[in-house]
This record gives sequence, C-alpha cells and structure tokens, in this order.
Amino acid sequence: MLQTITWTGQAARLLDQTKLPEQTVYVEIANEKQMWDAIKRLVIRGAPAIGVAAAFGAYLGVRSFEGDRVATLKRVKDVCDYLATSRPTAVNLFWALDRVHKIAAEARGDIKSAMLAEAIAMLDEDNRVCRAIGEHGAKLLSQLADSTESIDLLTHCNAGGLATVQYGTALAPVYVGAERGMKFHVWADETRPLLQGSRITAFELQQNGIPVTVICDNMAPTVLRDKQVKAAIVGADRIAANGDVANKIGTLGVAILCKHYGVPFFVAAPTSTIDLSLSRGDQIPIEQRAAEEISIGFGKRTAPANVSVFNPAFDVTPAELVSAIITEFGVARPPYTDSLAAACGTR
Amino acid sequence: MLQTITWTGQAARLLDQTKLPEQTVYVEIANEKQMWDAIKRLVIRGAPAIGVAAAFGAYLGVRSFEGDRVATLKRVKDVCDYLATSRPTAVNLFWALDRVHKIAAEARGDIKSAMLAEAIAMLDEDNRVCRAIGEHGAKLLSQLADSTESIDLLTHCNAGGLATVQYGTALAPVYVGAERGMKFHVWADETRPLLQGSRITAFELQQNGIPVTVICDNMAPTVLRDKQVKAAIVGADRIAANGDVANKIGTLGVAILCKHYGVPFFVAAPTSTIDLSLSRGDQIPIEQRAAEEISIGFGKRTAPANVSVFNPAFDVTPAELVSAIITEFGVARPPYTDSLAAACGTR
Repeated sequence: MLQTITWTGQAARLLDQTKLPEQTVYVEIANEKQMWDAIKRLVIRGAPAIGVAAAFGAYLGVRSFEGDRVATLKRVKDVCDYLATSRPTAVNLFWALDRVHKIAAEARGDIKSAMLAEAIAMLDEDNRVCRAIGEHGAKLLSQLADSTESIDLLTHCNAGGLATVQYGTALAPVYVGAERGMKFHVWADETRPLLQGSRITAFELQQNGIPVTVICDNMAPTVLRDKQVKAAIVGADRIAANGDVANKIGTLGVAILCKHYGVPFFVAAPTSTIDLSLSRGDQIPIEQRAAEEISIGFGKRTAPANVSVFNPAFDVTPAELVSAIITEFGVARPPYTDSLAAACGTR
Repeated sequence: MLQTITWTGQAARLLDQTKLPEQTVYVEIANEKQMWDAIKRLVIRGAPAIGVAAAFGAYLGVRSFEGDRVATLKRVKDVCDYLATSRPTAVNLFWALDRVHKIAAEARGDIKSAMLAEAIAMLDEDNRVCRAIGEHGAKLLSQLADSTESIDLLTHCNAGGLATVQYGTALAPVYVGAERGMKFHVWADETRPLLQGSRITAFELQQNGIPVTVICDNMAPTVLRDKQVKAAIVGADRIAANGDVANKIGTLGVAILCKHYGVPFFVAAPTSTIDLSLSRGDQIPIEQRAAEEISIGFGKRTAPANVSVFNPAFDVTPAELVSAIITEFGVARPPYTDSLAAACGTR
C-alpha cells in the first residue's frame, strides 16, 4: 500500500494527492508553513491523515526555535494556533494539535523530542485504529451477504488508506475483509468538485486489487435502485455527540438516497473524529472553498466568468439517517448520544 | 436570446454548445451525416431542439437526391432511419422524423420542398409551444410565493432556451415570469459529466439577466435544506404514459431529495416528449455513453487508466415523485395516465 505520510528523520514525506492518479509524487515538508499549505491545498487530506500531518507540522514549527522553556511553549502554542487555521471542519486537526500541545506542556525533558515522539506515536496509532475499524466493519459487512457472494458497496469521496496513514476508515473493512477471502465490488462516487472518489478511491482500490466502478455523484440513485448495493459506507470529518456526521459534500445526499431505497448507511471513523463538545451537527463549522474549484475545475473554464458559485466542502448528515458508526472500539448504534459517549469513554 | 438553430436558406446553422461558455461558435450543417454527428456529439442537445434538428437533417439528406417519387421516398426513409440512430432516449427525435417522413409520403407536389417547409414549421411551432409552457409554468410558480418575493428554484441540466429553439421548457416559466415582473434566483446543478448546467444553464440565465448560482450536483441536498427553494423544475427527454420521466442523469436524485425535503418537483415538456406507446418508464431505452466523458472529462485524466466506469446519460424518475407536468396545454397532475392522455388528445 502507498504511504500517505512517513517521517524521514528530517522531514514529513507526503504523497501529493493533488497529482493522483496521473503522477505518484512525494513532497518533503520541512517547516510549519509548508505543512499549512499542504493541508490547505489538499496535498494531504482525510481527517485522520491531516491530524497526524498537523502533529508533525507542530514539531517542524518548533524544532529550530531557540529559547527557554516558557518561550518554547509560547512558540508551540503559536504554531498550533497557526496550523489550526488551515482547515476548519475536520476535528482530528484540532484533536491532534491539542494532543501535541499538551505533550509539550507536560514534557519533563526536551520539549521538541517529546513532540516528535508523539507525532510518530500518532502515526503508528492511526494504523492500529484503522485496522481495528477494519475488523469491526468487515464483521458488520459479512452479515449482509452469503459468504460466497460478492458484496456491492457504495462509497463517497475517499476515506481509504490515502485519507489515513495506511488502511483507511470506510475502506478498511474492505481491505481487512478481502484478506479473509470476502469479495467486494465498490461503486465510487467521483465526488465533485475535487474528485477524490475517481482520483483517489478508484486508484487505491485498483492498486489493491479490489474491483471498483467509478460513477458521477448523480448516478448513485440509479446504482442504488438497480445494482443490489448492500450498503453505503463513508468516512467522517467530525461527528457531533448526537451522531450527526459532517463529511465531504454530497454525503447527505447519499444518506437520503439510502433511506429512500432501504440501503444501510454506515459511517466509519476513529473516535478522534467524535466531538462530544458539540451536541448537534449544525454547530460544526463548514468550510467554504474557492469558486474556481467548480468553475475552472480542471484547468478549463466550465462556468461563465463572474457567475455566482456556492462551494461548501462538507455537509452534515443527521443522525437519523445513519444506520451505524464503526469506530476502533466496535459498532455504535442509535441512540448515538449514549453509544458514542461510551465509545469515547473507552479511549 | 441566442438562437440554437436557424435555417440560413442553404444550411441549418447550429450554436455549437460543446464550446460554451468559453466560445460562441456557430456551425453550418449541410448534410445528414453532419447532423447525425452534431446530435451525437451534443453540438445540439435538448429533446425539443434535437427534434427540430433531425427534421432539417432529414431534408438535408434528401435535397441532392435524384430519383423518382418511389426512390425519393425510399431515400427519405433511409435518411430518417439513419438519423434515428444518433441518440436513443429523447422521443422528440423519433417524433420529428416520423412527422417529416409522413409529410413526405403525403406530399402531392415536391417532396423536398414539403419536407423543408415542415422543418421550418416545426421550428416556429417549437417557439409557440415553449412560450405556452412558459405561460402555464409562470402561473404555477407565482402561486408558490408572494408577488414581491424572489422565488428560489433548483434546476438540473439545461432545459432552457438552448435545449429548444429559443425559450426552453423548464426555464420558459422563468423567462415569461421575469417579463411580467416576477423575480427569480436559480440554483443550477452543474450536471456531470458534461456540465450542461454550469456551461449552458448558467450561461443563458446570466445572458438573460436572471440571477443564478452554480453548484455541484452533490450540493443540492444542502441547498434544498437551507435555501428556501420553492420548487425544482426540470425538462424531460421522454415521458411514459403513466408519468414516469426520463431526463438527464441525476434528475431522479433531485426528485428523491425534493420528496425528502417537501419541495415540489415539476417537469416541463412539450407533449411531443410524451410517449403514450410506453406504459411505464422502465421501457424507455437509456443511452450509455463513453467512459472517457467521466474519466477524462476536461482534457485531463481524473480516474485511473482502465478503471471501470458506468455512464448512463439519463435516469427515470417514477411518476409518484413528480408533483406536476407542465405542457403547452396546461398543468397535468396525477394520475398522469389520465391527464397526459388528455393533454396529448388536445394536440
């Protein structure tokens, strides 16, 4: 599997996902400004991956700083505050920055070494967490079909290995299930405007030998109606305490279609994506992105000059449309206020 | 308003819609092969417009033919059969070809002149029919809001002036209403894969001074939830006797979303789009188009090479999701088996 983010010993090495699927290019990130830019431009994306990336970014912003403990901790806070402005919706970003900030504040020895060790620990932890999501998810999916039958799934955006360090969240059950002999076929929404579905999900499934068919987002209703899809499974950028799920724009539509056609709608995410401080999803800030992502999306103008464009990067799916939320600790079911609090209590 | 198709005296002059919005280019079509290609490549598109285009194409395929009456009628039939293979879903194509074929068969004088006269008559008729749809639709929409209030509408693909000779079907009520002082704001789904919404609908509304905002198809759920949209209004490529509606891929999703959010879902189409020979929508042939429209949609590869792609050009919205069908004879309501038969009986 491709590695989204690795630590070279000197820099964070990122797979540049804006270049996929045409080019597999890696960039080395040596300071916090480069990391801010990489997160903003979606060189690295996916809630779990940007959490880990931000942790390395915090370390990179501090490693050359000269000063006493007080000055260094002030620098840590400034760098964390700065990195937190890169993208507003995925809570994993803030969760990771809080975590390295706390490690720095509590460090008895060298602050910088403690921060780097924590970033590396988070990278390893992400792999274990995604693997656990895969285990629980594969078991859940195995209940939807005979063991000999290929399971058709629908996914939106990319919550695969390339949204995390390695295994993914929504796709982890597919990878783990495939290791055990389960068969899958995935319908991948291309996911406008930035096409993470066709560029990244299709790419990684193809690389890993999982049959995949790309569709435009607006073809999902036809697929759900005609193609015996057993479940939709997506990731999340932030989950409120009541189970409302912020995820890539278009996820809400998939959930409504699933309700209409009686198809289970699953969300797979680590508990670091759950924000118990927000009681409802309408409190989640939704990132608005540049009009040009839609109007000049592929280097070619596809909407008239000066036309008004609305470009929210995420939407919020209400908990009542979510059949289950798969975390590293198991499958949470409604009522989510209880089941998510229990999952977070475990961590 | 831009003219989709005009007769120069020697050729059919088409606005090349594949070049919009960047270039306003016209092409002159001088024979049936060029017309077949123009319809296939969507140089001209929109069910009513391709009907008129096909009628001119039939004439152009016959005008240089030398032969007696029997041979000429054979040639008419061959040309019509050929043009009918250009696209399979829009019934207006077959309706128009049947009509010129019949005119030719019944002509007492010069067959070629009769065919040309009929094509020109159909061009004029399309304007009258669209204008009438606009009148009925504007009245229907005026009932959804106070007369001083701006009406927010959602539309999908392009069923505007550029899908017909001039006024459009779904957008005709907007143009006629605006002439009378009604205010509108239209949310235009960009409509993947060929972006008729952002390239054509946004372009023509902007040209005609109607406020418009472009969104990706997957943003429609957020817009319907948050933006006080009073109705969705779309065109149709073929309507079965029971009111099932084939239209651009993604229309089914819009209809399901409208049901979920309690927003009326209107279809506007001339009675030439109604196919009483089909009792249900699942009998309508759905055109499958090339994978490259999705995987290399804008001159740039956006999905991995050799990936499987599913690219149906249309979907079928079941009648129970359709609030009303606006034709040139008025507003048809459920049960459509009765109301559509009555509308077609009027023509």
